Amino acid sequence: MDSRNFALAQGLVDRSYVSQARQSRSSREGLVRQLLANRRLPEHGWDDVTIKLFLNEIASMDSNNFPGNVGLGEREGRVYSSLVRERNFHLHHGIGRSGDIGAVQPKAAGSSLVVKIAGSLALDASKAAGFTNAKHAAVIPVATGMALTLTMCALREQRSSCRKVIFLRIDQKSCVKSVLTAGFELVLVDNVKDTAADEVSTDLERLEALLNEDDYVCVLSTTSCFAPRIPDRIPAISALCAKYDVPHIVNNAYGLQSRRCMNLIQAAATTGRVDIVVQSTDKNFLVPVGGSVLSASSPKLIDAVLKAYPGRASASPSLDVMITLLSMGKQGWSRLLEVRERTVIHLRETLGSVAEEFGERVLDTEENEVSVAMSLSRAESKGINVTFIGSKLFSRFVSGARVVPRLNSKSKVCGITFNGGFGAHCADYPVSYITFACTLGVTKDEIDIGMGRLRESLSECYKALDGN
Amino acid sequence: MDSRNFALAQGLVDRSYVSQARQSRSSREGLVRQLLANRRLPEHGWDDVTIKLFLNEIASMDSNNFPGNVGLGEREGRVYSSLVRERNFHLHHGIGRSGDIGAVQPKAAGSSLVVKIAGSLALDASKAAGFTNAKHAAVIPVATGMALTLTMCALREQRSSCRKVIFLRIDQKSCVKSVLTAGFELVLVDNVKDTAADEVSTDLERLEALLNEDDYVCVLSTTSCFAPRIPDRIPAISALCAKYDVPHIVNNAYGLQSRRCMNLIQAAATTGRVDIVVQSTDKNFLVPVGGSVLSASSPKLIDAVLKAYPGRASASPSLDVMITLLSMGKQGWSRLLEVRERTVIHLRETLGSVAEEFGERVLDTEENEVSVAMSLSRAESKGINVTFIGSKLFSRFVSGARVVPRLNSKSKVCGITFNGGFGAHCADYPVSYITFACTLGVTKDEIDIGMGRLRESLSECYKALDGN
Amino acid sequence: MDSRNFALAQGLVDRSYVSQARQSRSSREGLVRQLLANRRLPEHGWDDVTIKLFLNEIASMDSNNFPGNVGLGEREGRVYSSLVRERNFHLHHGIGRSGDIGAVQPKAAGSSLVVKIAGSLALDASKAAGFTNAKHAAVIPVATGMALTLTMCALREQRSSCRKVIFLRIDQKSCVKSVLTAGFELVLVDNVKDTAADEVSTDLERLEALLNEDDYVCVLSTTSCFAPRIPDRIPAISALCAKYDVPHIVNNAYGLQSRRCMNLIQAAATTGRVDIVVQSTDKNFLVPVGGSVLSASSPKLIDAVLKAYPGRASASPSLDVMITLLSMGKQGWSRLLEVRERTVIHLRETLGSVAEEFGERVLDTEENEVSVAMSLSRAESKGINVTFIGSKLFSRFVSGARVVPRLNSKSKVCGITFNGGFGAHCADYPVSYITFACTLGVTKDEIDIGMGRLRESLSECYKALDGN
Amino acid sequence: MDSRNFALAQGLVDRSYVSQARQSRSSREGLVRQLLANRRLPEHGWDDVTIKLFLNEIASMDSNNFPGNVGLGEREGRVYSSLVRERNFHLHHGIGRSGDIGAVQPKAAGSSLVVKIAGSLALDASKAAGFTNAKHAAVIPVATGMALTLTMCALREQRSSCRKVIFLRIDQKSCVKSVLTAGFELVLVDNVKDTAADEVSTDLERLEALLNEDDYVCVLSTTSCFAPRIPDRIPAISALCAKYDVPHIVNNAYGLQSRRCMNLIQAAATTGRVDIVVQSTDKNFLVPVGGSVLSASSPKLIDAVLKAYPGRASASPSLDVMITLLSMGKQGWSRLLEVRERTVIHLRETLGSVAEEFGERVLDTEENEVSVAMSLSRAESKGINVTFIGSKLFSRFVSGARVVPRLNSKSKVCGITFNGGFGAHCADYPVSYITFACTLGVTKDEIDIGMGRLRESLSECYKALDGN
Repeated sequence: MDSRNFALAQGLVDRSYVSQARQSRSSREGLVRQLLANRRLPEHGWDDVTIKLFLNEIASMDSNNFPGNVGLGEREGRVYSSLVRERNFHLHHGIGRSGDIGAVQPKAAGSSLVVKIAGSLALDASKAAGFTNAKHAAVIPVATGMALTLTMCALREQRSSCRKVIFLRIDQKSCVKSVLTAGFELVLVDNVKDTAADEVSTDLERLEALLNEDDYVCVLSTTSCFAPRIPDRIPAISALCAKYDVPHIVNNAYGLQSRRCMNLIQAAATTGRVDIVVQSTDKNFLVPVGGSVLSASSPKLIDAVLKAYPGRASASPSLDVMITLLSMGKQGWSRLLEVRERTVIHLRETLGSVAEEFGERVLDTEENEVSVAMSLSRAESKGINVTFIGSKLFSRFVSGARVVPRLNSKSKVCGITFNGGFGAHCADYPVSYITFACTLGVTKDEIDIGMGRLRESLSECYKALDGN
Repeated sequence: MDSRNFALAQGLVDRSYVSQARQSRSSREGLVRQLLANRRLPEHGWDDVTIKLFLNEIASMDSNNFPGNVGLGEREGRVYSSLVRERNFHLHHGIGRSGDIGAVQPKAAGSSLVVKIAGSLALDASKAAGFTNAKHAAVIPVATGMALTLTMCALREQRSSCRKVIFLRIDQKSCVKSVLTAGFELVLVDNVKDTAADEVSTDLERLEALLNEDDYVCVLSTTSCFAPRIPDRIPAISALCAKYDVPHIVNNAYGLQSRRCMNLIQAAATTGRVDIVVQSTDKNFLVPVGGSVLSASSPKLIDAVLKAYPGRASASPSLDVMITLLSMGKQGWSRLLEVRERTVIHLRETLGSVAEEFGERVLDTEENEVSVAMSLSRAESKGINVTFIGSKLFSRFVSGARVVPRLNSKSKVCGITFNGGFGAHCADYPVSYITFACTLGVTKDEIDIGMGRLRESLSECYKALDGN
Repeated sequence: MDSRNFALAQGLVDRSYVSQARQSRSSREGLVRQLLANRRLPEHGWDDVTIKLFLNEIASMDSNNFPGNVGLGEREGRVYSSLVRERNFHLHHGIGRSGDIGAVQPKAAGSSLVVKIAGSLALDASKAAGFTNAKHAAVIPVATGMALTLTMCALREQRSSCRKVIFLRIDQKSCVKSVLTAGFELVLVDNVKDTAADEVSTDLERLEALLNEDDYVCVLSTTSCFAPRIPDRIPAISALCAKYDVPHIVNNAYGLQSRRCMNLIQAAATTGRVDIVVQSTDKNFLVPVGGSVLSASSPKLIDAVLKAYPGRASASPSLDVMITLLSMGKQGWSRLLEVRERTVIHLRETLGSVAEEFGERVLDTEENEVSVAMSLSRAESKGINVTFIGSKLFSRFVSGARVVPRLNSKSKVCGITFNGGFGAHCADYPVSYITFACTLGVTKDEIDIGMGRLRESLSECYKALDGN
Repeated sequence: MDSRNFALAQGLVDRSYVSQARQSRSSREGLVRQLLANRRLPEHGWDDVTIKLFLNEIASMDSNNFPGNVGLGEREGRVYSSLVRERNFHLHHGIGRSGDIGAVQPKAAGSSLVVKIAGSLALDASKAAGFTNAKHAAVIPVATGMALTLTMCALREQRSSCRKVIFLRIDQKSCVKSVLTAGFELVLVDNVKDTAADEVSTDLERLEALLNEDDYVCVLSTTSCFAPRIPDRIPAISALCAKYDVPHIVNNAYGLQSRRCMNLIQAAATTGRVDIVVQSTDKNFLVPVGGSVLSASSPKLIDAVLKAYPGRASASPSLDVMITLLSMGKQGWSRLLEVRERTVIHLRETLGSVAEEFGERVLDTEENEVSVAMSLSRAESKGINVTFIGSKLFSRFVSGARVVPRLNSKSKVCGITFNGGFGAHCADYPVSYITFACTLGVTKDEIDIGMGRLRESLSECYKALDGN
């Protein structure tokens, strides 16, 4: 309410109470002012009343909510179901214009604000997580895989003479497909296994050899991944990309929540070439699936992606990100990151106990700060079909665990041959294993319960053996 | 958002779009301003975005929603469940203070505003419905029966020498109980049946005789009721109450929606004595059960009721009324009233067709503008147990129909003897009948379907006879 | 979905996933089954998805939500605004019937279930909190003050020869009014100050003297209160009530959260006479204001109250209680109680530090486990107007603190004279003081912030003195 | 609730009421059964209680809502903000798998059901609207422009030897961009103006000449468009595509609501080649922007598009479509279509009156059933800058009107030259004009108000002339 309305309210309710309410109201306006002026995460998370007040303000800025508006075009934000209206907070126009998904919509100042704010908050959250050199960010309403495709499409104009993308091996189907759907040829660079540890990572020599012999649309590297793969050698790759003047796209899918991944990117962006970093909104910001964050120290490629997007798109992912980051605030976000760092240690330890108990070991993949793997060697040697362990966990309501057997026959994915089978990110990985991830929001309790169910599952498998 | 925030928004979104949004925003502030200044129904109903914006503004005025508030009392508006918070729009403090349920709460300027606005809107709606002389109104969070009890309790101080309430017969248990729970003796005045028509109404002679012989806490009359009873002779009763200086309480439970009831009250309040009119919020304003509207041309008794209420109470009924009346607006409210007037004619006609078909007749109770009754004489004479007709309708998902058999044995209710059985509002009503009501929101379609099911039910009863 | 629908879903989604979903669905049905069968708090709180699923099931049991229902009565649960519908979860019929607010409504099996379940859960929560002898409980949609009035109204029939209520002094206006609005004479029994400690409590001698000389409607005692008053001597009072055969009503407003209050009641109910215990839903269960819990080891008086209530009433308070207690579960409820017990110690300690700093002391009122008071003697002696301290806290957004000055002139409340002024619960309390309460949900952080603001407020008062 | 729980409920609430509730519940299960079995629009729209019950059932099928589920993967559907959880009905997993956006997710049977049902309902709605030959449909979470891009990307594999797309001129930037972002060369086929009428449409001769001389990825035609352009000659184009064996993509953006557009597609699909029809969800189904419907009589290209999509995506558009179509039902959908057909006639007539008044004429473009244009020739001849008329309407809160001046200088869009300027869909359109659209949901009232504001705007422009 504006000051005239507060004055009128004093005719109904005592002056002193209204005055306190007004003081509180004006502190809320102050929060909005800071947000619009600084475009950064608020220090403390906003409460739901403030967020909803803000959302209602924003909704009232879209033409479909103007009192007395008459819509005589083909797209006027009319919505049939009140359930749908409510759940979208009356923001119906989506985002973007014909020309540019990042552009402001004439009919929808409110929705446009949401997009801008979501981008700014995501940028600030990226900086707080370690990519301090980030200068630009955008939230787009497609998940990581499609965001990678769009990014490569956007590179087409600049790299019109190239047809090939260097793909640093990651055994994930949507990554493979992101290259092919963009219309490019995928040049696979297999990973190498560390001789000392269990880790699997970039074959830098092979990469440089390739860069030396031809020109490419881009190099596509990956940070966040399942153990025993660890993040690609991002700084070294960036140095090569700078040297050979090739764009470098980093698939940082769920790495925004990992200080190690973010530090790698920060180091790479400072000394070498990182054109764009692509990350998932759901995995990093705890929102439903559907969006991604593009970030970079230069606006060039982000802008090209936004401009390449044909037409309008859903505002839902931006809305979810905006609400969530306002609700977390800087302190909430930092706390989540810290708690995760402590919790992954707990996962490593409790998994270690299980491993010891069953004659297995936690693989030595310290550089992967999110995912942890335990060998299934003894189980396998005893004749247990290791994939059963995964099914047993699934039926015990543990989701997310993945068993990768040593001898994985499936090797051709989308027409591309993956040596040694698709799963372990490299040819001939010597042990079968099971992986678990410790992502934002997992609690120690959940890990304890999960490890208990793993213990039960393993015991059951061993018992079944004895039974035979 | 205030003007500084709109200015900042221009840094993110084009100036011209923000300016249009601001214009629209300020037209919303204008709506709130009119409401707070005039305290009347808005001409046009508010859309949901405006209502929610207003509710959020209001919520932000309560101390439990002040950013940084610390509550160290015994009642601080903390709410455990987010579902509960959401559904109460974060308004947790209820209404009233120790001293007065109509009083403003220091901790809850917002909730207090809701109460005041709900009362003002209910007053305006009462005027628009015909009680133009109404000057004061309050929405209280108890339904009609309890509101009558509270009203009588509030009269105790003024009428400390009296112990009896004159009860103009209405065969409804909660009315009887409202007198007894207040701690008074109920003096029953039986109704008389009109000799020409089928109508049943006030025995004015008996009333005057009683007033002549003793002093009373009050006379309790009723307008809205089931046919064949018609509204009490409110103007004549008011004249007697004025003559004998006895308070007059009108139970106008669902009469706010009926022009005839409201005109009777208006006429009575102008020429005679009407101390308070009590009506249901759910039946008249289409909200969930739980509140009532007290209205009067003088504040005296309303204020006494508010002051008699010990302690705080739920804000829910006021909230529902406020939202609903803002949503209807004056035009919506008037339209609902008009549609009902047309629909009751439709009910009378379609019920007439059914009656003709089955050799019955619609009772001649024109002065009851809400409820219509059809005789069940022929059915009864053929040996049908008429109460079965009601069960058949119930099992066909027609709710609200009531069958009153001629010979109703139950005659003692809460210790009070009702001559001729409890149901027909008078002794020895000559015919069995079934009633239907046409209240706000019923559609012609519903009536057509309902009458179809009545036809089926009757046919089935007749067929069952033949079967024997 | 029933089993046929799950089978059909397998035509759209893989059998194994549907089967897992079905297993999970059936575990949810199991939760509902346990609830309906045992009518006790679930061990673990339900998640919101389960609660909403259950609420939707319940809503679908009310006639206004039957597909194809036709309503031709005067009250058919039609609701105009979709905002109002949503917030009431489509439960529109309220609770109760003409005859009995605890009765089941024919049109609203769902709403009726809510009432029953809310009562059962409140009973179980009462037992868990210490009143293990409780056998009956009901949630009624009026707050504590009005619940006390209704209880006394309900006693009228049984105690038709009595006109007086013994009121064990509690300086709270709504308690006084609850007696007067019920239509009874209030016989005030002043408290006595303990000679050793700072505590103020029941004058048992005076009570027995009164009981000896006359007959009464009931004795009204109070447990939860502001220090320096402590809970009434409930077991001793109960013994006297048994001896003199007088009903005993315990106002346990916010004592359900205090083990000490509940233990007193339990002890009293086991050995003496406790007819009913009345407590607030908002203060004990963290819901919005508007309801109360009646509990007892015998159903007699509770049933009389339910039967005395004339007509229907709002379902909102029951709904809020049901949602909240399902959401807490037994573990959540117990944890809240335990945390509060620890937190009140923290309050006592931090307030002690402030007291020491400013030359004051925390009053010795150990038997009051919820409220704590600090003297303001030195401040007063230095010439500070102690009521200013309260205002300063209010303007610093600390709500709930109360300053009671030694010389409180206001002594007549609702026509009753309170010796020594209204506020300190006894005549001539020797020191001025300020009270704080530690109720469910307060955090240590809040207390630290609040005590910091108290420190600031006191400093400011002292500085202002120096300035003169 | 299952039958055991209903039986238990009878312990709390009367048997007969529970039995009626159970009957009603089972009729709701019946609605779900019909939906899952037939996968068609329900005859009558579902009420909100049924829809929410169904949504809660669906949500409870996703692993993030399984009681006791432990998530130890990188994507477990955790959501931070309760506002975000609520608005997404706890469906967090999005849709699709790495391999296929149409595939069922192991962790999310519920979300997967939503996708399947949304597709089935969209198919049924398409048939009801006239494309009776449609056999397959999918709702994908990108709007029309991006859906066209994806479709062309999906054609790449089948048409690996082609690089060019035939673009039947439509002056809409996102259409142009959809081709370029897919990585293809755009071959522009200019439209021709009808010599008799004002209509602009396909140059079939030029199209055949091109098909004759080279091979193409596809032909991209458009139905719904702004007057004076009319739908492309879809049947003739389909015949040519069949003859030359070239895929045919129909951009039917907002044509699903127009019987004429749907009849053209139906005719074309029956006799010629239509590989896929792409339409907007927001414009046709009154949901927020963000999705599109792919439909076809053969599954081939739809499946290829779903398989080309890399990774997961937002479930929001499917959810909005499912809720809305369940809420409309077949009757609601048909009524919306019929009302629109009548309303467009009203628009044509009232616009005709304005035209007559100001010496203009409604352009003769009968074959465009959605958009109507009025000449601005006289205004232009009098020296009025016709673009001002658009601004005046915008500032009067009429959105959606478009002014296209005769001499439109902008002719190069995304590097493609458009003869005669971008806007009129053909070279050298002889008159300046303003267009209005009559889409689903527009009311006659809105049109009357809008035409009133057009009258005011024109008057103002003429007055300004006189002023000079």
